[in-house]
Amino acid sequence: MKNAAIFGASGYTGAEAVRLLLEHPQIRIKALSANSRAGEAYASVYPHFSGQDLPETRRISDIDLNDIDVVFSCLPHSTGQNAIAAALESVETVIDVSADFRLSDGQAFERVYGTPHQHPHLLSGRVYGLTEFARDALPGARLVACPGCYPTCTLLALLPGIEAGLIADRHIVVDSKTGVTGAGRKATLGLHFSELSDGSHAYGIGNHRHAPEIEQELRERDHCSSISFTPHLVPMNRGMISTCYVELTPGTTLETLRDSYANRYYADPFVQVATDDSVPQSRHVRGTNLARIGIYPDRVEGRAIIVSVIDNLVKGSSGQALQNYNLTQGWDETLGLSATALFP
Amino acid sequence: MKNAAIFGASGYTGAEAVRLLLEHPQIRIKALSANSRAGEAYASVYPHFSGQDLPETRRISDIDLNDIDVVFSCLPHSTGQNAIAAALESVETVIDVSADFRLSDGQAFERVYGTPHQHPHLLSGRVYGLTEFARDALPGARLVACPGCYPTCTLLALLPGIEAGLIADRHIVVDSKTGVTGAGRKATLGLHFSELSDGSHAYGIGNHRHAPEIEQELRERDHCSSISFTPHLVPMNRGMISTCYVELTPGTTLETLRDSYANRYYADPFVQVATDDSVPQSRHVRGTNLARIGIYPDRVEGRAIIVSVIDNLVKGSSGQALQNYNLTQGWDETLGLSATALFP
Amino acid sequence: MKNAAIFGASGYTGAEAVRLLLEHPQIRIKALSANSRAGEAYASVYPHFSGQDLPETRRISDIDLNDIDVVFSCLPHSTGQNAIAAALESVETVIDVSADFRLSDGQAFERVYGTPHQHPHLLSGRVYGLTEFARDALPGARLVACPGCYPTCTLLALLPGIEAGLIADRHIVVDSKTGVTGAGRKATLGLHFSELSDGSHAYGIGNHRHAPEIEQELRERDHCSSISFTPHLVPMNRGMISTCYVELTPGTTLETLRDSYANRYYADPFVQVATDDSVPQSRHVRGTNLARIGIYPDRVEGRAIIVSVIDNLVKGSSGQALQNYNLTQGWDETLGLSATALFP
Amino acid sequence: MKNAAIFGASGYTGAEAVRLLLEHPQIRIKALSANSRAGEAYASVYPHFSGQDLPETRRISDIDLNDIDVVFSCLPHSTGQNAIAAALESVETVIDVSADFRLSDGQAFERVYGTPHQHPHLLSGRVYGLTEFARDALPGARLVACPGCYPTCTLLALLPGIEAGLIADRHIVVDSKTGVTGAGRKATLGLHFSELSDGSHAYGIGNHRHAPEIEQELRERDHCSSISFTPHLVPMNRGMISTCYVELTPGTTLETLRDSYANRYYADPFVQVATDDSVPQSRHVRGTNLARIGIYPDRVEGRAIIVSVIDNLVKGSSGQALQNYNLTQGWDETLGLSATALFP
Repeated sequence: MKNAAIFGASGYTGAEAVRLLLEHPQIRIKALSANSRAGEAYASVYPHFSGQDLPETRRISDIDLNDIDVVFSCLPHSTGQNAIAAALESVETVIDVSADFRLSDGQAFERVYGTPHQHPHLLSGRVYGLTEFARDALPGARLVACPGCYPTCTLLALLPGIEAGLIADRHIVVDSKTGVTGAGRKATLGLHFSELSDGSHAYGIGNHRHAPEIEQELRERDHCSSISFTPHLVPMNRGMISTCYVELTPGTTLETLRDSYANRYYADPFVQVATDDSVPQSRHVRGTNLARIGIYPDRVEGRAIIVSVIDNLVKGSSGQALQNYNLTQGWDETLGLSATALFP
Repeated sequence: MKNAAIFGASGYTGAEAVRLLLEHPQIRIKALSANSRAGEAYASVYPHFSGQDLPETRRISDIDLNDIDVVFSCLPHSTGQNAIAAALESVETVIDVSADFRLSDGQAFERVYGTPHQHPHLLSGRVYGLTEFARDALPGARLVACPGCYPTCTLLALLPGIEAGLIADRHIVVDSKTGVTGAGRKATLGLHFSELSDGSHAYGIGNHRHAPEIEQELRERDHCSSISFTPHLVPMNRGMISTCYVELTPGTTLETLRDSYANRYYADPFVQVATDDSVPQSRHVRGTNLARIGIYPDRVEGRAIIVSVIDNLVKGSSGQALQNYNLTQGWDETLGLSATALFP
Repeated sequence: MKNAAIFGASGYTGAEAVRLLLEHPQIRIKALSANSRAGEAYASVYPHFSGQDLPETRRISDIDLNDIDVVFSCLPHSTGQNAIAAALESVETVIDVSADFRLSDGQAFERVYGTPHQHPHLLSGRVYGLTEFARDALPGARLVACPGCYPTCTLLALLPGIEAGLIADRHIVVDSKTGVTGAGRKATLGLHFSELSDGSHAYGIGNHRHAPEIEQELRERDHCSSISFTPHLVPMNRGMISTCYVELTPGTTLETLRDSYANRYYADPFVQVATDDSVPQSRHVRGTNLARIGIYPDRVEGRAIIVSVIDNLVKGSSGQALQNYNLTQGWDETLGLSATALFP
Repeated sequence: MKNAAIFGASGYTGAEAVRLLLEHPQIRIKALSANSRAGEAYASVYPHFSGQDLPETRRISDIDLNDIDVVFSCLPHSTGQNAIAAALESVETVIDVSADFRLSDGQAFERVYGTPHQHPHLLSGRVYGLTEFARDALPGARLVACPGCYPTCTLLALLPGIEAGLIADRHIVVDSKTGVTGAGRKATLGLHFSELSDGSHAYGIGNHRHAPEIEQELRERDHCSSISFTPHLVPMNRGMISTCYVELTPGTTLETLRDSYANRYYADPFVQVATDDSVPQSRHVRGTNLARIGIYPDRVEGRAIIVSVIDNLVKGSSGQALQNYNLTQGWDETLGLSATALFP
């Protein structure tokens, strides 16, 4: 049994980590941090955990890390770098759900997040945990940076085609939609029920921080063209869609593309590729670590549209974090993650 | 006072026409058709009209058109062509909300809708009623084909830039999102509350019938490149977003583009252009005939993202129909359409 | 034309007052107060008013009341008493949407709201504006206290039966459900979209402040038995239901009861009584000043269940406020309030 | 390992049974019936099961019951009696989720459901599976009738107080609210997304079939007074609330009542009693077999309000079915039912 601490357990990604770890046969939750609500029973922070045997929340500084094997860090970006660096001194593994270690160098981080990285030397050694593309690097990894929700959803849709040379190195449009939990648990007017229900809108148009992260990974695969990226907020709790508009390399047919994806993900328990015209729906992966991908002919010749859906809190965040941790330990990656979608 | 008949009053666009006409100072609702529910009080078809003085529903064939000045036809596509052709024999004006007269020739119609047009000779004389671009043709028009909801939302976002030569004649991506009323009032599993709430999905990928309609209008403005178009269903009643990804012509700046749109729509009471970075939200036009448009720099140089929102049932359907009718009569186009959005 | 000021225009009831007054042919909006956002364009507080010609927001103290004929006060309870007392020195009419003048004496107010009333002498002269039961008192009234949303919805369901002696003076259960706008526009965790959607809960069980208000009005009609009252929050923007469980006086039949309600409200433009088994739905009065009432046989002999629905922001708040103001002026009470429900 | 067949797997309760059984360590799903969709892959009936190893759907008559140990019957009421009677000839256990075996005699069934019971002789031997009140009868039971969702939610709230003599044998009001899945997966206009979202309404007022079922169980505990019962449909997928208004026996205090409930359910893993003023929310039990109960002083002396929430598809249906089956087998009742709520 491994002992886990969850940093930032008062946010939605933290609560989702708790939910998933409670199902895990090899992990025991030993500590929960929630600086602003330290000292409370966790069930008072999240009543749906009432009845569960969980430690009360503490400040991070009050957690004895000697006891801990793995930290799942769910802190807001830019706030957990020191805590993670410190944790790496004593715990075996840190799985970071935030944006802090996703970009591969400190300058990129500063450019995108507007503040210098506190521990840039850690960036080179971290594993970028898009699980299906990080299998070789994960076993034994000590610091895993889990991709953002949009990058996870989008890269799963794009990388097989790019790696196989089927998607041309041309401008790609990524239009994404997310559920409201993606915006966190802040009590702001913009997240008020009546301000959000029965409507939708784009945000972060042209400047969302996940776009450089997506491009970083594309460039690593020699796709050097830029992407256009627009996220939208949809009145639902969970769920994410990336609709990706790509140009195919000459001679690439839809069948080639579909087969290629189906083969690429054949052995991956959490990625399902539709090889027909059925369309993935975010609600059908609700609560699961699944990604579903559909590939369609565009009406414009030589182009395709690739649609990918995930649950932003699971595969887009704490589920992938756990999948990654399973692999650092050499365990079956599905441990704790096998639940069927809660539909409806 | 003009006497109106509404064909297809049992659908959502029909009901919306009734709602709007009830506010109109110059129009009296004289007849409502609903073939499948002929003979019922309209309030039994739509309880929210209870208490309103409205005629009971009839079959179209039971309506005495001699009494009628204008028909608002809200029938499903391909089902109303004969009724409309017949109505044109006796009524002054027909405003068609369906897809039947949108495409400019019968072959295009057959190609897209899979069935021959019954009255192709009527197509050349009809006015394509994207109001803000049809002002010259509307006065006195006898047959107005109201654009589809997606074409309305999208063309309002694209045409000013294309007409002004600011958007390059290159491939455009249009990613759209609609509320559920856009799918009509059919009792199907796919529209069941629990199958739709708390989730979202794309549909009609690469083959939605509104794409050829959009391209028809682009080509009329010498924009000959094709478009990629994907609509998505969002768990909300009303509202539509088109997020349009365009390449700009050399030298075009964001300021030029914004100014151009602001000028183009300056005198239009129902189109609002944001000249700053604020983002239009569909909920803020709920129940109104407004379109709101925002224009943003893409992160890719030389490109822009144009976002347009409407209420799919109003500006995307029966509201624009009424706006068009107002103009056929030489009336103020805002008659019956001045209500503020119902927010929240 | 009368000049209106709206105090507390940054809340949902204030915004709803603005929406309704914009449709009113005899009222001009001259001033909007929003202390915390004074100096902003109103469209920055509420983007759905963008394009409307409205004054910018001010502090109440910066409004020149000499210019104003009527104040619609939409301030939170206990915060507007001084402003209202001051306004009464210079303006003709004050319509208060808050709870401050609903209870008939200062001690009752203090008991329920926990703070002494600043101007208890004004309470005896105010009109309790449950319109359909205040017609005699409204013409010329200078201070009207609009009932709370729950009292409005509930009293419309109970008073006719009580006044007619058909409902026994016995314990009544009132179980109510409200949309989220009823909780105001505060940015609190409890109103976060993801904390509220896809679920429901009771609140204020046994101690909601609207219960004493309901009982005050029952006692005025010599119904001295107490009520049990539980409100529930439902994931919808607007809408309110009161389900009332009553004992009938001996010999009272369902037909008697239905007829009595139908007769009582026969001439009331905003109250509709179903005389059959159809059930009112809150969504069918969305955006309107309507109340719909249904009366049903309980399965327990000698009892009935009366269900009433309103839009909590309209008949439950600013719509009834305007209806009341219309009557103070001797105008048609439907002025500005004739819109059909926005359904769906 | 036990082999299970699920009758009626195309409905929501059937799908929920599948979801739960997939997590169960001792049960293998061997057969799924769905008469109207026989021969389809189950993932085409419910795409969220895509990737799961499940049998294709069949007609009931095509299932070889010799292979089966337990049938979970999720058929619509009145349609499965013959299939269940036949199954009892060959399988060890039948857990019926429908209403067919809930009422204790055939005449009561016919009175309430309007059609004669086909196998009334089976009624006396069946166990009424309100688990927490059927522990003695469940071990070895061959036919378990799972209570309706409303009866489950309501009886859990009422029975401890009644059995302990704390709730007076007087008229009780039960006002309930349910999510839309409670209405099943029928494609009807009344369940259309746009007909249900952003609104709420009562239904079955005074004549819902679950009221006699509730009373049957009350009478078994010598509570002979009748109940008033009104269910309401709330725009959410899952969740149920029963708000129960009761009179207390003389001398009963709130503390007595709370203590009594806490003690009664002390050892029950799926019932949580709040001993403070916190209010249970349906969303906090989403996807779980939990019931949460809160007990509050009414503002009327001598009365209390008891609020109970469940997930209608789990504790209100297939979860309780599985809990019951676990106990028929002498297993830990939480097997397959230990997941935390999916919140948000």
